[in-house]
Amino acid sequence: MPDTPPRTEGKRVLADLNALRAIGTYKTGVHKPTFSEPHRQSLDWLAQKLPDAGLSAAIDGVGNVFGTSTKPGPKLLAGSHLESQNYAGWLDGPLGVVYALEAARVLNGDPAFKGAVEVACWCDEEGHFGSFLGSRSFVGQVTEAEIDAARDRTSGRTMREALADMGLSGRARVTAEPGRHVGYLEAHIEQGDTLESGRLAIGVVTSIVGIWQYRINFAGEQNHAGTTRMAVRKDAGLALAKFCVAIDQRFPETCGSRTVWTTGRITLDPGAPSIIPGGAEMLFQIRDDDPAVIARLEQLLRTMADEVNAKGPCTVTITKLRTGAPAMMNSGFQDAIEGASKALAGGRSIRMPSGAGHDAQMLATVMPAAMLFVPSIGGISHHWTENTADSDIVTGAEVFVDACSRILGG
Amino acid sequence: MPDTPPRTEGKRVLADLNALRAIGTYKTGVHKPTFSEPHRQSLDWLAQKLPDAGLSAAIDGVGNVFGTSTKPGPKLLAGSHLESQNYAGWLDGPLGVVYALEAARVLNGDPAFKGAVEVACWCDEEGHFGSFLGSRSFVGQVTEAEIDAARDRTSGRTMREALADMGLSGRARVTAEPGRHVGYLEAHIEQGDTLESGRLAIGVVTSIVGIWQYRINFAGEQNHAGTTRMAVRKDAGLALAKFCVAIDQRFPETCGSRTVWTTGRITLDPGAPSIIPGGAEMLFQIRDDDPAVIARLEQLLRTMADEVNAKGPCTVTITKLRTGAPAMMNSGFQDAIEGASKALAGGRSIRMPSGAGHDAQMLATVMPAAMLFVPSIGGISHHWTENTADSDIVTGAEVFVDACSRILGG
Repeated sequence: MPDTPPRTEGKRVLADLNALRAIGTYKTGVHKPTFSEPHRQSLDWLAQKLPDAGLSAAIDGVGNVFGTSTKPGPKLLAGSHLESQNYAGWLDGPLGVVYALEAARVLNGDPAFKGAVEVACWCDEEGHFGSFLGSRSFVGQVTEAEIDAARDRTSGRTMREALADMGLSGRARVTAEPGRHVGYLEAHIEQGDTLESGRLAIGVVTSIVGIWQYRINFAGEQNHAGTTRMAVRKDAGLALAKFCVAIDQRFPETCGSRTVWTTGRITLDPGAPSIIPGGAEMLFQIRDDDPAVIARLEQLLRTMADEVNAKGPCTVTITKLRTGAPAMMNSGFQDAIEGASKALAGGRSIRMPSGAGHDAQMLATVMPAAMLFVPSIGGISHHWTENTADSDIVTGAEVFVDACSRILGG
Repeated sequence: MPDTPPRTEGKRVLADLNALRAIGTYKTGVHKPTFSEPHRQSLDWLAQKLPDAGLSAAIDGVGNVFGTSTKPGPKLLAGSHLESQNYAGWLDGPLGVVYALEAARVLNGDPAFKGAVEVACWCDEEGHFGSFLGSRSFVGQVTEAEIDAARDRTSGRTMREALADMGLSGRARVTAEPGRHVGYLEAHIEQGDTLESGRLAIGVVTSIVGIWQYRINFAGEQNHAGTTRMAVRKDAGLALAKFCVAIDQRFPETCGSRTVWTTGRITLDPGAPSIIPGGAEMLFQIRDDDPAVIARLEQLLRTMADEVNAKGPCTVTITKLRTGAPAMMNSGFQDAIEGASKALAGGRSIRMPSGAGHDAQMLATVMPAAMLFVPSIGGISHHWTENTADSDIVTGAEVFVDACSRILGG
């Protein structure tokens, strides 16, 4: 038995994060898609670490890993995810999992501390097969039919095949046990430049913005790129390009101060160099934490589409794929994070919304939930150059563990 | 021995074209990529038909099928191709092959006629693996290294694998035998609306326009679509869209009366809904039969790129992939086609350039060459709805056979 209670060890946190980076390394980041071999190895790594924190490890039928405790007293759930976007960064996900593991090691291992941190590693937060499949499954929002239909957006492999390859076919999915947890806490890199530009250490997340996703399709007339005169063309690709430029020109007049919008993918049909595209498709999304702003922008988008359809020569249709209500973070938990920041980070924190989606927004539908951000160098994420200073990683871990302690103690 | 010399039989031509449409049928067209099973079956079909025209059939190491004659006298080479674009029309290629077969049946089978038509079916005119690989191989412009590097643009299968699957590995490629042929004649659907709108039956091709192909790459900064403020984004996809719109606005001031330009493919990198594209690429081509016009437009394109690079936030680079000199058609052969049209189509012909590329432009580098067009309904091609009225197909066949006769007789 140690003479002094366990405490947050920055070196151990950095060593764990680097051990996870060594699995599926890509340049200074990782390539660890959901259910890839590096992802599987990362889940195994976690399952082997959980007993050090007094937790028994199990993986459920959707690929979520849970570390559960038999310690008496209140229990706080904490975690994040271990898969990555394709060819992306080393901290997006692992940071929150390792912080949760560290909090469990420190607090569960202290016999004088009443209560325990339980760890959750949510599967497919990055959406290779769907949208927050792991955490949505835990809160009871995923049907078997949705899993039947899910496919890897890069390889086309079905989720059923992937689960079979992982040895998870037929295994039950774990859902939230009412009353078991006082709430959920998740740490994450900011993925923006608010903390860095303000020389701050901690972001106290107030809400997670909603994401509204649209598929916008243009229909023209496929034809030969050499024999069809410019005057008679119905070029769906050109119609799409004009629409993108029109959005860029007109959205700023109507948006809110924090609204963002993105065309992430463009596909021309058939996409051959000598064929005028008869079809074109763009994936478009809008994010804001105010649904009224989104409603105004969606109306503008539909007005612009009406104008294209009235003018020709191509037609456009807008399909709404996803409506994401913003999730509010628990205010008591926000106070706990802020208190921990004052104690351990000189109060260098700010309350801010999250522009990115996180598993915490799903957990917030069934229990109090909150999030803590650490700075991202240059605001970069979803890219292999994503990084955070080691000192910021260590400070974040100390604040996170203390926040867990405060939540469980309160 | 027949009492009367053989003559063009429209019914036989239509039956042959429909037999080829029955191989690899897609809706009312065909899906017959190079070296696909339907393509292989179509080449077999042709090889079995050639003996009816007094020709012995052989396939060479690049997939070209030749029907050669031992008949004394001058020889005219005629043909086109049998593979199709993906999910495309039934006449683009097969029309010219069947017309050549019909001319060979009529003229080679007439003992009183001095000379013969030999048939060529060029492989991969549609560019699944490269650019005019079959006809360029015949005129001596394809190296083994090019074939080593060639891949199917849709499936990624290497050309070497495809040739092995066809049983053609290690087979020699046939090149033009100097002096063997008086020239080359090819028939094709117009793929535009000039003949239809002028109520004409025959296009006498004067030249085949050159195609200049460019890859235009935009570099921005890949980042998270939720956390990166609009003001600091470097969205390569938006930069590409603006460039497309700028081309649409500025090219008309500088182009010629028949110039056409097309963006056939757009790719965003990484192409995920929640990631701001850090890279974007467009395949862009310009066609004209006047290199001076192309030179002006290319200069404009580079000026526009300089403007983008000076202004930011993204950078653009232009890579020229292909420079296509226009090919002039033989004037004596043009006269022969026009003469045949006067005799058999009421003179309803027009002299016109071809906006599309054809194997004839490759043949024109080693022998006199010419082309004949028949009308395309609605000007549509490279799409499964591509079609030509049966009566126009039959008239075209009669004119083609007569033109062959005139060329060989002259």
